[in-house]
Amino acid sequence: MAEEKKSGEKGFGKYILINEIKEQYASAFSGDRLKPKVSNILYLEGIHFNLMYFPVQHLGYKSVINAIADLYARGLKPENIYVNIGLGARFKKTDIELLIEGISLACKKYLVSIAELEISTSLTGLAISVAAEGKEESKMKRSQPAATDLICVTGDLGAAYLGLEILERETQVYEQTGGAQPELKGFEYVIGRQLKPELKYDLLQQSGDAGVTAGIIRTVRDGLASEILHIANTTGFGCRIYHDKLPIDRETEAASKELGFETIISALNGGDDFEYVITVPVKQHELIEKIEGISIIGHHVPKEEGNSLALQDGSLAELKAQGWE
Amino acid sequence: MAEEKKSGEKGFGKYILINEIKEQYASAFSGDRLKPKVSNILYLEGIHFNLMYFPVQHLGYKSVINAIADLYARGLKPENIYVNIGLGARFKKTDIELLIEGISLACKKYLVSIAELEISTSLTGLAISVAAEGKEESKMKRSQPAATDLICVTGDLGAAYLGLEILERETQVYEQTGGAQPELKGFEYVIGRQLKPELKYDLLQQSGDAGVTAGIIRTVRDGLASEILHIANTTGFGCRIYHDKLPIDRETEAASKELGFETIISALNGGDDFEYVITVPVKQHELIEKIEGISIIGHHVPKEEGNSLALQDGSLAELKAQGWE
Repeated sequence: MAEEKKSGEKGFGKYILINEIKEQYASAFSGDRLKPKVSNILYLEGIHFNLMYFPVQHLGYKSVINAIADLYARGLKPENIYVNIGLGARFKKTDIELLIEGISLACKKYLVSIAELEISTSLTGLAISVAAEGKEESKMKRSQPAATDLICVTGDLGAAYLGLEILERETQVYEQTGGAQPELKGFEYVIGRQLKPELKYDLLQQSGDAGVTAGIIRTVRDGLASEILHIANTTGFGCRIYHDKLPIDRETEAASKELGFETIISALNGGDDFEYVITVPVKQHELIEKIEGISIIGHHVPKEEGNSLALQDGSLAELKAQGWE
Repeated sequence: MAEEKKSGEKGFGKYILINEIKEQYASAFSGDRLKPKVSNILYLEGIHFNLMYFPVQHLGYKSVINAIADLYARGLKPENIYVNIGLGARFKKTDIELLIEGISLACKKYLVSIAELEISTSLTGLAISVAAEGKEESKMKRSQPAATDLICVTGDLGAAYLGLEILERETQVYEQTGGAQPELKGFEYVIGRQLKPELKYDLLQQSGDAGVTAGIIRTVRDGLASEILHIANTTGFGCRIYHDKLPIDRETEAASKELGFETIISALNGGDDFEYVITVPVKQHELIEKIEGISIIGHHVPKEEGNSLALQDGSLAELKAQGWE
């Protein structure tokens, strides 16, 4: 949720580094043994969250959401989570309890069980690792990605990032003024998206029930742009998305304006949306249009045309990967 | 490998805290949905390892060993691992490569694949989370724990802890003298057990092939004493182990003497042994005795007799749990 997360393209740049490593140690990655049914996340204090404005219950909740998000994208139903917590000396038993309370709440909502809990000390801050295990139970058939596929996204984009920025601004004001009350009114939605994200897995199920077949399904975690580049990389096609098709909440617009940001940048590169981006055969156009909560935002193009954002004036802006150090 | 790991009883004390939390949030833990097939570990710099003497390749290797160890104990064959790495600013690309090299080496040896690799920044040191996923493939039948079960252990105890102490001593000498060569000769075995542990899962397989049925199988991770208390807690019986039956390597004895330690304390409470402790029906006494590399170290006793270590003079010392803050 900190710096690294602000740029989705950075997310993809990191992916390039990981891909280099994968090539170098190919034999360790090449296994086609068991179909992977697990997703593992690591949250580190100061990098992925700031406890100044992130309540520890919410952190517990969000760590579960983050861990299980990709399982739905892979057609798995989350069943168990395995939690490891590293606690700095400043944390007390009540902090662990609040953290577990948040984790429990997410478990209840998403029908997941804690199968393992391990706690150790940490030299510095709080570290949370959550591995989630799912079982196959997809209601959505998959199709081969095609040159004419539509690109769709659930919910709306950029809200969680603006929620983060509002929280950071208010924390600074609080620190500078020595305790001024934060002004969060009117930003409840974007802040909620940052602090207590939910997953739109039901929209994937609805789509499947309606007969939609997905080529690619990915969680929007490091920004839409990063996921678009991943899709292009996987399918071998280019991607074009349309500025005026991107779903953006009115409050996200308002928060952008308030902070002097470009809304489109937040929508493309803001982290922690936890929406799903899906590619769908063009002939299922009418089926997907009927699903409330899913937007068609673009389509594949020939590889030579690259990855681009079509602006309102008809011009194209290139989507590209940024470096990662 | 640091302070916390030195005391196995502390390990059990922590377990008491975790059990309290489990009771408090019982509904989140009560799931009997999918049989857990995952194990998840979190290694934090300064707590679980010190890079002054822990080569980063070995750290990669050991993190895999640690993650997969319990799967064998649960009758699962490790198949995939899911790796998350948090890197402080002082780390370079070569550090990641060395870490992955160690991970790859362990993958090759234990026939495991890296299914996911994620890298993020870390504000301070190095953090590694490895989730391991296994599939059912036990060669060992299980039996109901009984009042007369024998308690057995693979390999030998306390070596990894003494390896750690030798490494720490030499690091201090190095720092105090401004670069004196470390004196590690004669301690290759104990240091190897600390830096590059291996798993005796083959001894579990051999036992199974020979017709041995296990009541309980646990990895000795936080010291034998801690595992004995876990066993007593699970089975409802007391446990008695015998000082003169504990398998201790000659080099472990020598290192204890050199450092002025009590060997028995290291054998009972030293961390990172990664041996397996097994309870076995008493009628399989002859079967288990034939397995080279497994020692019978004790047996269940009635619960009222508690958990104890029988000393050479015939007296009993109580094994009990220490606190954890």
